[in-house]
Amino acid sequence: MRVSQASLKIGELATGQDLTLPIFSIKAENVSAPSVYIQANVHGAEVQGNAVIYQLMQLLEGYTLCGDITLVPLANPLGINQKSGEFTLGRFDPITGVNWNREYLDHNIDIAAWYQEHLALSDGELIAAFRSSLLEFCQQRLNSEWGITTGHQQAVILQSMAHRADIVIDLHTGPKSCKHLYCPEYDANAASYFSIPYTLLIPNDFGGAMDESVFYPWWQLSEYIKSKGRDMPIPVSAFTLELGSQENIHLEDAEVDAKGILAYLSERGVIAEKVKPEKMPRYACYLKDYKKYHSPLGGMVEYLAEVGEPLPAGKPLVNILRLDLYGSEKALTSLKLQQDCVPILHFASASVYQGTELYKVMTNVFEI
Amino acid sequence: MRVSQASLKIGELATGQDLTLPIFSIKAENVSAPSVYIQANVHGAEVQGNAVIYQLMQLLEGYTLCGDITLVPLANPLGINQKSGEFTLGRFDPITGVNWNREYLDHNIDIAAWYQEHLALSDGELIAAFRSSLLEFCQQRLNSEWGITTGHQQAVILQSMAHRADIVIDLHTGPKSCKHLYCPEYDANAASYFSIPYTLLIPNDFGGAMDESVFYPWWQLSEYIKSKGRDMPIPVSAFTLELGSQENIHLEDAEVDAKGILAYLSERGVIAEKVKPEKMPRYACYLKDYKKYHSPLGGMVEYLAEVGEPLPAGKPLVNILRLDLYGSEKALTSLKLQQDCVPILHFASASVYQGTELYKVMTNVFEI
Amino acid sequence: MRVSQASLKIGELATGQDLTLPIFSIKAENVSAPSVYIQANVHGAEVQGNAVIYQLMQLLEGYTLCGDITLVPLANPLGINQKSGEFTLGRFDPITGVNWNREYLDHNIDIAAWYQEHLALSDGELIAAFRSSLLEFCQQRLNSEWGITTGHQQAVILQSMAHRADIVIDLHTGPKSCKHLYCPEYDANAASYFSIPYTLLIPNDFGGAMDESVFYPWWQLSEYIKSKGRDMPIPVSAFTLELGSQENIHLEDAEVDAKGILAYLSERGVIAEKVKPEKMPRYACYLKDYKKYHSPLGGMVEYLAEVGEPLPAGKPLVNILRLDLYGSEKALTSLKLQQDCVPILHFASASVYQGTELYKVMTNVFEI
Amino acid sequence: MRVSQASLKIGELATGQDLTLPIFSIKAENVSAPSVYIQANVHGAEVQGNAVIYQLMQLLEGYTLCGDITLVPLANPLGINQKSGEFTLGRFDPITGVNWNREYLDHNIDIAAWYQEHLALSDGELIAAFRSSLLEFCQQRLNSEWGITTGHQQAVILQSMAHRADIVIDLHTGPKSCKHLYCPEYDANAASYFSIPYTLLIPNDFGGAMDESVFYPWWQLSEYIKSKGRDMPIPVSAFTLELGSQENIHLEDAEVDAKGILAYLSERGVIAEKVKPEKMPRYACYLKDYKKYHSPLGGMVEYLAEVGEPLPAGKPLVNILRLDLYGSEKALTSLKLQQDCVPILHFASASVYQGTELYKVMTNVFEI
Repeated sequence: MRVSQASLKIGELATGQDLTLPIFSIKAENVSAPSVYIQANVHGAEVQGNAVIYQLMQLLEGYTLCGDITLVPLANPLGINQKSGEFTLGRFDPITGVNWNREYLDHNIDIAAWYQEHLALSDGELIAAFRSSLLEFCQQRLNSEWGITTGHQQAVILQSMAHRADIVIDLHTGPKSCKHLYCPEYDANAASYFSIPYTLLIPNDFGGAMDESVFYPWWQLSEYIKSKGRDMPIPVSAFTLELGSQENIHLEDAEVDAKGILAYLSERGVIAEKVKPEKMPRYACYLKDYKKYHSPLGGMVEYLAEVGEPLPAGKPLVNILRLDLYGSEKALTSLKLQQDCVPILHFASASVYQGTELYKVMTNVFEI
Repeated sequence: MRVSQASLKIGELATGQDLTLPIFSIKAENVSAPSVYIQANVHGAEVQGNAVIYQLMQLLEGYTLCGDITLVPLANPLGINQKSGEFTLGRFDPITGVNWNREYLDHNIDIAAWYQEHLALSDGELIAAFRSSLLEFCQQRLNSEWGITTGHQQAVILQSMAHRADIVIDLHTGPKSCKHLYCPEYDANAASYFSIPYTLLIPNDFGGAMDESVFYPWWQLSEYIKSKGRDMPIPVSAFTLELGSQENIHLEDAEVDAKGILAYLSERGVIAEKVKPEKMPRYACYLKDYKKYHSPLGGMVEYLAEVGEPLPAGKPLVNILRLDLYGSEKALTSLKLQQDCVPILHFASASVYQGTELYKVMTNVFEI
Repeated sequence: MRVSQASLKIGELATGQDLTLPIFSIKAENVSAPSVYIQANVHGAEVQGNAVIYQLMQLLEGYTLCGDITLVPLANPLGINQKSGEFTLGRFDPITGVNWNREYLDHNIDIAAWYQEHLALSDGELIAAFRSSLLEFCQQRLNSEWGITTGHQQAVILQSMAHRADIVIDLHTGPKSCKHLYCPEYDANAASYFSIPYTLLIPNDFGGAMDESVFYPWWQLSEYIKSKGRDMPIPVSAFTLELGSQENIHLEDAEVDAKGILAYLSERGVIAEKVKPEKMPRYACYLKDYKKYHSPLGGMVEYLAEVGEPLPAGKPLVNILRLDLYGSEKALTSLKLQQDCVPILHFASASVYQGTELYKVMTNVFEI
Repeated sequence: MRVSQASLKIGELATGQDLTLPIFSIKAENVSAPSVYIQANVHGAEVQGNAVIYQLMQLLEGYTLCGDITLVPLANPLGINQKSGEFTLGRFDPITGVNWNREYLDHNIDIAAWYQEHLALSDGELIAAFRSSLLEFCQQRLNSEWGITTGHQQAVILQSMAHRADIVIDLHTGPKSCKHLYCPEYDANAASYFSIPYTLLIPNDFGGAMDESVFYPWWQLSEYIKSKGRDMPIPVSAFTLELGSQENIHLEDAEVDAKGILAYLSERGVIAEKVKPEKMPRYACYLKDYKKYHSPLGGMVEYLAEVGEPLPAGKPLVNILRLDLYGSEKALTSLKLQQDCVPILHFASASVYQGTELYKVMTNVFEI
């Protein structure tokens, strides 16, 4: 097996220098399985995905590849290199404020019209034609007469690579976070393969992220033709893996997640050998039950609730310290929820404004 | 006439200090005209609206008020006080990246159901009931069990004040900009009163800004009951005035715009005296013809096209200087458009990435 | 014992709102011991000192005070409230880039001339006169005809409060750090009382920080009059305590450090009761042996060396992951030092430019 | 004449990409005159120097070169590409806050010892030896065992290039500024050649900027050997040209400044042809009379005093608008100076904290 490397230009800086991505390709000798696209670090501070790609490339040396794999680490050079103080300010475009993970193209396809033109095709032909259309829409967007924003250009170039693959994995992290997976409801069984204890089952909808931008048009097509009496399973899978906390590189832990990805790829036949998923309890909730809790007051925050550990109703999430109120009972306030939950991630800083998102918690959690 | 001042808390900082707004109220002795709400500086660097409010309050001393006026300058204390280098980083929340002017509540009202409950009411009662509902939805949002983000809380508090008024004016500026007005299509004649040469006629739709958040539910209601055979004009007016460039205070020019607002208020009967609008040519285009032009390359920018001056097709917008390409013909590139336009604003910095929004231009401009 | 609270204005924001500090004062009934000044959070992200002040005020309820104590938590409201992304950008003035802890006044006193004027005074009178002079210089700086910068004004107001005290404690933290103490060489024995394992013995010099700004003029005076044959011990003590990592509030750990401060205050007679210092091994090195290690290359960083744990020569500090070099031996580089050290702190982010300060390490460490 | 271009690596980004500078060299056929080094854009937003280098390179095509010229535009790629909101945050390192123009090496040479070793040399040999020593010190700094910071590395690489030249010109701009020149007192007559109306005569001292880092060691050497009875004029000249306002590219104006530089180079024999300096009144003051005026209050700022225009005592610099104080006389405050001055530059933003540097003004101005 041979990893080949290329460099792709996705923008230009003010100094004229190119913004480029490293792209790694591993080709199957005889393709018999889905193709795979994996990217990491679209948010600048979420670096652990690079370590997972590193470990995965190393691990893959020992397996027989039956589908092509494309890997794009360091997928947002502008965001990764943008420091502000000691940290990486990589969550949004520093000029526009737009979240780098909300820049993907919503194709807004008129499915009925599209299908009317293509209904004579066989399933295989239909899939190829639809994929071509998706790529063409991306290309049109990139060639817009009025230009395209920095972030949208980067995202649509990434999206074009993703559209060429059957399996798409986008590697992120939370701020201070346990591992969790965004998995579309139609593909829920995939959650049993990754080395990830918590899964968010997301609707088959476009919310703006990479995974959604990839599977949503296919889901639309599938639903539409089902309404016309034709049954065709959705031919692409797309997931976002949240690998723990941002601003953290941990090579050993990266191997754990690389093996989880390997187990999923094995299940899908991308590698010939059988790789078993890690044995671990796995839990899930629906996205509607994934709640953001915002601080009802400003102050200094002691985070008490551990991410990834169930928290019974009435147990404190945080203490808010307000020294300006010393001497009153408001000097120290414990914040609690009225219902059981599993805290999945919390804010990165130990001081907050009123309204800062303190925690994201799963409620109505069930085992899967 | 007496201006009364109050302070409204709209948040808390990490140190515990309150974020507050100054609110000025001027009450009519006998109310016979619409009430007015004017705010400024929701984007931190767009300070000129404060000067306009200052001049307007001074001018109003000389007139007879027939409707109540509420004025909220410095409407975004967090954004105004957030410096980054020598400039104000006040366009978006520094934590989330969300544009401060996209935080208003989309009520998402089920108009059919609401009207079903209220159809027996007279027009006056219907308006009062609908206003109450809007305020109630805002209040529910502010009291959400899971809290509310810093920016959303600030916006919905402002929006609640705006919902109480019949005329809403939101004072903004562009980056480097000529004066222009966002005016909903249903209210197009209002554009003849302000001291503003260029008008964008916007659809009667929710795009997320203050003006839209105010008029859109009323437009929905009006359309719906028209479909039921009942005719009721939209009882609120809402505009965004773009007062030129950001990071600029100019008191004399502020008086010009204060007089324009006065002319509009006079037309609406809010002041008893007749104030004539400034005589000036006024132009407009539809929002769909308002184009963003993104730089096709990175580099240093010489802005050539004057804002507010018609630019024939083929005349250069900018020169892009690329010293890294000195010696080639790409060292200096003139960028041109293929169609006539009026440049309305351009980017604030003289260096750009590929994809930076260089200019916004009006096309298909017509006199009004 | 009664804690009284006041609010001190130290600046004004662009919106006109005051920047204020909460100040807590605890008065001794009969003063027989030195007075104390403790401040925290001069760097915006270094919040744990507030928790220590909170715990210390609570603990002090149980002791008999023989000297007055002034406590100023949240000492830099501008820095504390300045977020950039999810973190607090509180290390330097966002406009000027000046480190908030390098804004203190260097008095630049002509000691010879000053002493010439005051040599007839007794030791007690001399100390009082010198203190008055220091306060007067601060006041002159604050009243400068040409104004004074935002950061300098804040710092000199804090410094004035510190000059009034005999013992000054400035509470900081590192980025990712173990606890350590900055202690002037002339006061080295104080290091045995705080609950802090590592001490940096700093020269009796002005480097710009609060502690130095307080003790340095006294040390100059003491040295000068010694050269004139008069012996007077330095009557003030000033320390910087680094309480671990920034962006962290931990109340239990804060109690440990509050008790360490209490032990020092007990030793100095500020509280009547005997409080023993924690029994723990304590180590030190001279400031000249405190080394900053800068990354020789850019890349993703896995921090391997634990802060506070001795690291033998040749053991890796970090791995630098360079995915762009995958396939070469440079894809993963271990960085090592040629000498034994104790890593005290490391950079907060997991990605670095070439030249980023990766670690600060103590070398030539000895037990104290 | 042929311009040759090279690319110099001066750092590495977190993604692994090189930070590089474009370097242009123009060689004299027969060297009979001093060599020249010109750099631009060390502060990221100060872009106009690039346009001046562009125009200068074009103009030089028409002249006979008698000394080598090295030109380095875009000298700070990290700073130039660092946007924060719509502006370039390029004044200081975003991680450390250190001003990019205060990173140059202070050689701290023991001149007496150095001269003791070299006193037998002829003037020409002495100059060559001292230059070698300066370069060697730079090299040692770059090779430091503990590494070197990102900004220091960039600066010392630039400084090494500058040390190789006899004439050094550093192109900057102010925030909102008229053109002015930093000129060392020993070289005051040079001020008559550039197209610049205002000159600051700076002491022959190290303040941290490029120009000072270049001439200061030579001035030290010259002074020292003069004290030993040996007279040798300072063999290097170094200037900082402030080309107006930041965030501005203006090619026509750049040509004016390029011609001023050409006039100086002509005077120095670097070009064979005679180029006359622009006829214009030129004024100067000493650096001690260059005053920074800080805002005594926070608020919105209307800048009234034009930069480059003499301002009599008692005339207003600015109006500070304080809407929170509407109704009181403090709603609008005019700030004035008690002495005549020439405002040279003012702050870039229209809102300030208390203590923000509002204006820099020359006092005690004289014609030169």
